[in-house]
Amino acid sequence: MKKYAIIVAGGSGIRMGGALPKQFMLLKDKPVLYYTLKVFLEAYDDLQLILVLPVDYTDMGQEIIDAFFDKERIRITAGGDTRFQSVKNGLALVEEESVVFVHDGVRCLLTKDLIHRCYRQAAATGTAIPAIPSRDSIRLQTDEGNAALDRNHVMLIQTPQTFHSKIILPAFQIDYKDKFTDEATVAEAYGIKVSLVPGEEENIKITRPLDLLIAEQILTERAG
Amino acid sequence: MKKYAIIVAGGSGIRMGGALPKQFMLLKDKPVLYYTLKVFLEAYDDLQLILVLPVDYTDMGQEIIDAFFDKERIRITAGGDTRFQSVKNGLALVEEESVVFVHDGVRCLLTKDLIHRCYRQAAATGTAIPAIPSRDSIRLQTDEGNAALDRNHVMLIQTPQTFHSKIILPAFQIDYKDKFTDEATVAEAYGIKVSLVPGEEENIKITRPLDLLIAEQILTERAG
Repeated sequence: MKKYAIIVAGGSGIRMGGALPKQFMLLKDKPVLYYTLKVFLEAYDDLQLILVLPVDYTDMGQEIIDAFFDKERIRITAGGDTRFQSVKNGLALVEEESVVFVHDGVRCLLTKDLIHRCYRQAAATGTAIPAIPSRDSIRLQTDEGNAALDRNHVMLIQTPQTFHSKIILPAFQIDYKDKFTDEATVAEAYGIKVSLVPGEEENIKITRPLDLLIAEQILTERAG
Repeated sequence: MKKYAIIVAGGSGIRMGGALPKQFMLLKDKPVLYYTLKVFLEAYDDLQLILVLPVDYTDMGQEIIDAFFDKERIRITAGGDTRFQSVKNGLALVEEESVVFVHDGVRCLLTKDLIHRCYRQAAATGTAIPAIPSRDSIRLQTDEGNAALDRNHVMLIQTPQTFHSKIILPAFQIDYKDKFTDEATVAEAYGIKVSLVPGEEENIKITRPLDLLIAEQILTERAG
């Protein structure tokens, strides 16, 4: 089946404290986004990338594409005020029945294995949400205080959140709600039960300066 | 008030795949445990350390103490089969009314600030459990599938879990249960509502080879 990967890099990256959004920061002399795009393009030859960028940074995104990639395989669109709107803008460019990956641009360390795993499950069941067990104990804050959750049942959710286009396209027609923190919650509001697949410990988000150093270590290890 | 810190390093570290338990692995030429002990000793002059080690590694623990620290301030005891039993063995050495910190030996990057914060709150309210917000979406696996949790209310729990001795000592007299994944759950089973304090992003557990590299980066940043 045809594949689309919507790479969401709409954030302005204020948490990094730098002028440059985090997806453009350099990791081993290349932008974070370079690594993200590369692994998706290499995962499948018939995969089309849709890159969602803040409107002020579409030129910078185009420069990365021109420098490193086949521009036929990547389209750029502008992000919205919310992640929901940014993904919705990306979905507007999905033109055929397909499996659609929605991925955080700053999670640049995922592997092809994870992409393949998500594809297989979404093609078979309609959804694939990568998740890893929590290494920490977890508590839920309640009105009365806080309560322990059973750690064996708590999963930390990653991306690419992956869906059959028949699910994700109609799901995103519903009105935005604050609880839509990711695409799985949108699909659920549309009435779909999502299924989890094993994620990857190293599939971290680059959101702090320390994360860039961690990512550099991981890339060095992989190269060695 | 007098302070005791029980440093739990009872694990044999099988997840690292090396022969040496992870608390003894070298981080910038010193054992992980060295950093943990040092920050507690420096946090308060009237703090007594109780180091809980696997029985086969008490000699190695003693060597670290002899090489770097005032041996009057640190006692070693053997760990048990469970974390619960290890902590209980440590609590047997608490001799006076005090604030008791229970800390993972492999969380070697906590700061004195965090120790002070936990002390103040435990002295005032009886308990202090450090916690940080989750950076990932969280799902709970249920019999019917899985469900999103409100990320704004999910907290990742760290150590030092800190208690007034009047709470922690009687709490650990109850029978062991599988759900006792940390000391907060033991205190709750004893009928205590625990209170959270802000933890630290860098207060990570060293459980994987990658964590050692991350810890090294953090120490380098702090030194620079």
